[in-house]
Amino acid sequence: MQFNLANSTEILQRTPSVLRAMLQGLSDEWLYANEGEGTWSPYDIVGHLIHGEKTDWIPRMEIILSDKADKTFEPFDRFAQLTEERKPLDALLDEFDVLRAESLQILQSRSISDDDLIKTGIHPAFGEVRLYQLLSTWVAHDLGHIAQIARVMAKQYKEDAGPWVAYLRILQS
Amino acid sequence: MQFNLANSTEILQRTPSVLRAMLQGLSDEWLYANEGEGTWSPYDIVGHLIHGEKTDWIPRMEIILSDKADKTFEPFDRFAQLTEERKPLDALLDEFDVLRAESLQILQSRSISDDDLIKTGIHPAFGEVRLYQLLSTWVAHDLGHIAQIARVMAKQYKEDAGPWVAYLRILQS
Repeated sequence: MQFNLANSTEILQRTPSVLRAMLQGLSDEWLYANEGEGTWSPYDIVGHLIHGEKTDWIPRMEIILSDKADKTFEPFDRFAQLTEERKPLDALLDEFDVLRAESLQILQSRSISDDDLIKTGIHPAFGEVRLYQLLSTWVAHDLGHIAQIARVMAKQYKEDAGPWVAYLRILQS
Repeated sequence: MQFNLANSTEILQRTPSVLRAMLQGLSDEWLYANEGEGTWSPYDIVGHLIHGEKTDWIPRMEIILSDKADKTFEPFDRFAQLTEERKPLDALLDEFDVLRAESLQILQSRSISDDDLIKTGIHPAFGEVRLYQLLSTWVAHDLGHIAQIARVMAKQYKEDAGPWVAYLRILQS
């Protein structure tokens, strides 16, 4: 097990400012670009991260750390952001800042021990999962969506890059 | 042709602050992590971007815009950063800030026209390439390496994420 709570917090606390650095003030051609029908734009991805912050990571941690008899998680709706009100991107970035700060405050306040990290909950599809797996996934999920935002934007220039596509792995995925 | 110089500049000017938001102050376990032997760490990737700034994008643009009879580019050494002096990350981030600002100043000063964008140079492997292809590649290359940094870090938790790997595309690449 490589998981380390302090190292994980380093990544989780950076994500709001990474999103801001990547997206704030960008033209709509970038913010609403996607990879084709049924795929997400950078704007959609920020909405997805907000939804996860409200319903996924901390609520599931709280279930694992609770004394409940039934520790089954609520299923997470991965498409919720697509039906929500279309606020301006700046409002989403602000909302995510606040929500992430609250999440990290709760995480900190639980003084999670090594024993806590191996406590379990029940994932609706996977069955028994441990707290360190949930927290590792939270970190990797943030980084995955940062990479996705970069990929979606890069792909807008796939044709224009011409022969260089051969050297750019991101345009081949 | 989707290429747009103003939109491209939006991305190019953000990259130094995106790298800073992602990496400044991170633990060495993240900065020097890689995806296995022969692969790059976030630290290596910043070095690679610095090397590109010095020898690739603007120098090649200048060859294309010049009156030289021979417009063949110098080959770009994609591994140069691996043999360079190991400065602290903060020094690399500062260096990249300065170099990128200089690059953008030169780009701006050339008042590039639509006619300029279709001018050509000779790539050592691809043959004739156009200025808009070089500039599109510059943008996609920045975004590709931002995605790579996120991927390299995410992969450190590939085992710890347990069954969630099935939902995290970034851990499958």
